[in-house]
Amino acid sequence: MTGARYRKAGVDIEAGEAAVGLLRTGAGLDTNAFAQGVAADDVDPSVRTLATTDGVGTKTLLAASLGRLDGLGADLVNHCVNDLLAAGGRPRMFLDYIGLHRTDPGTVAMLVHGMRRACVESGCELVGGETAEMPDVYRPGTFELVGTLIGTVHADDALPRRDRMKSGNLLVGLTSSGPHTNGYTLIRSVVEDRDLNLSVEPGGASWADALLAPHRSYAAHAAALRAEGLAPAGIAHITGGGFQGNVGRLLPDGVGAVVDTAAWRPPAVFRQLVEWSGMLRDEAYRVFNMGIGLVLALPSDQARSAVDLLGDACIMGRLEPGSGVRLE
Amino acid sequence: MTGARYRKAGVDIEAGEAAVGLLRTGAGLDTNAFAQGVAADDVDPSVRTLATTDGVGTKTLLAASLGRLDGLGADLVNHCVNDLLAAGGRPRMFLDYIGLHRTDPGTVAMLVHGMRRACVESGCELVGGETAEMPDVYRPGTFELVGTLIGTVHADDALPRRDRMKSGNLLVGLTSSGPHTNGYTLIRSVVEDRDLNLSVEPGGASWADALLAPHRSYAAHAAALRAEGLAPAGIAHITGGGFQGNVGRLLPDGVGAVVDTAAWRPPAVFRQLVEWSGMLRDEAYRVFNMGIGLVLALPSDQARSAVDLLGDACIMGRLEPGSGVRLE
Repeated sequence: MTGARYRKAGVDIEAGEAAVGLLRTGAGLDTNAFAQGVAADDVDPSVRTLATTDGVGTKTLLAASLGRLDGLGADLVNHCVNDLLAAGGRPRMFLDYIGLHRTDPGTVAMLVHGMRRACVESGCELVGGETAEMPDVYRPGTFELVGTLIGTVHADDALPRRDRMKSGNLLVGLTSSGPHTNGYTLIRSVVEDRDLNLSVEPGGASWADALLAPHRSYAAHAAALRAEGLAPAGIAHITGGGFQGNVGRLLPDGVGAVVDTAAWRPPAVFRQLVEWSGMLRDEAYRVFNMGIGLVLALPSDQARSAVDLLGDACIMGRLEPGSGVRLE
Repeated sequence: MTGARYRKAGVDIEAGEAAVGLLRTGAGLDTNAFAQGVAADDVDPSVRTLATTDGVGTKTLLAASLGRLDGLGADLVNHCVNDLLAAGGRPRMFLDYIGLHRTDPGTVAMLVHGMRRACVESGCELVGGETAEMPDVYRPGTFELVGTLIGTVHADDALPRRDRMKSGNLLVGLTSSGPHTNGYTLIRSVVEDRDLNLSVEPGGASWADALLAPHRSYAAHAAALRAEGLAPAGIAHITGGGFQGNVGRLLPDGVGAVVDTAAWRPPAVFRQLVEWSGMLRDEAYRVFNMGIGLVLALPSDQARSAVDLLGDACIMGRLEPGSGVRLE
């Protein structure tokens, strides 16, 4: 079987290698290495290594259908960054995996370029990745983006600190840039059912802009809070499961959370999606972030200082005796 | 839009959550955490954190078509373990990502069970994972397995040590269990072209057994070498790109490698695949591991000690002045 015959079997080795090469451009790393590393500046034995892995889900399909892949790299990195922040960690290094129907070097380069830029913005390094072409697994035109972020946390900073989460704590919400990376199966269904013109504007920006705005990183917010000595007892990243799922998983026994839905006005894109899909309020806050991407639990005085410090934040709830998450 | 309507849009949240729950069973970790960690026992600032990410490729398709998914978890973990060994590292923690057309909790449980067992065998911990159901990305019946392994290496142990790879070094090959996770697009093509009866035996084991044997971990071999003070200057994990690609990427300028293909007899499964596909020799050693899963470069005396110590190993080549990899 010749190279041509082997290519016929479904794998183009050279195209794959070219794309993988692009992954490492400019990283200053040994591109021949089997694994990549960073110096561990963890001279303190109480430092823990943290890791989180995730994908961007079906936002890839919407982006591909619009030919706008430039934000997906940031979607992937920042989703992972915020998960790490929720554990109290600081991002250190990131690795990606791109699985696709057919390797298009331009697509891979655009995705990796976006990842690299997002890594720089959140203070970590893109140290490696893998590209796999699997036409019998992926549908034509589709691809999968998976990322893993590795970071560190000092034992004293690890979150959540359930012993410090108490009735009377306030919840501070940080504004999101849009749906981030959640609810896209539903969003695509609405776009299709309504045969939406994605260039029409829902309150200023085009639908395409509103739906494809990259997942926001809150790494700078976390650093600013740290610098001021403001220490959340818990941080929830509002992703799949929404407020009920993600604030709920932080709560210690005997403590419930109230989310005051009147504390902020969900951006137009959410209001319109909820209206068109006929979703009930509880379901909307379980599927979408509704304009709040990260929720911090803080003592009331620190919560107010955090809002003053960060600007794009609001008090949007509180902890009280009870259990679970209640919308108000 | 009700829960039922949302499910109709393509996502079954409850099935997803049940599967994710299975991922964490028995790990002794906080299953509510946004990121997972292990204590960093890296009190030495010269310790580096290493990470590697990869998938198992289209071996999933062959395994699924035969209803035999039990080895895929080990395939994923051990592929990553061997990549980490090639960088001189010791495995610490592993995270998986399973993307699939439809979430079947039994499938996810079997995959994760295999990963967990493989992690224990290689001395690391399965600390987290993610399951994503994406019917519009994955073809019916297909799934994707991606893993990330994190480990540590002391600066003195980091590989390859190109300054120590010299003409006269011998190459020691460790036997593989089969094709491991490489060449499966071609293998599937041969199986299909020949309409192979996978229960017929190619020299003892059934074809299905031979083709689905899990990727072998060499973590115990590496530990045994370390315990005896045998220090490879370079380790190549024979995966995509075969001997030419993976031994080749280790070589310093001015040093070439000779692979003595007469030093070992490729197992029946490889001889038959090469014959049926009509592959030339050079191509066979570029696509398949041909029975050798890991190649170590060692000074000649240490190479002979390594073979005596490990048993399932042979001297299968040498370094010489020149460049690239030559089959002999």
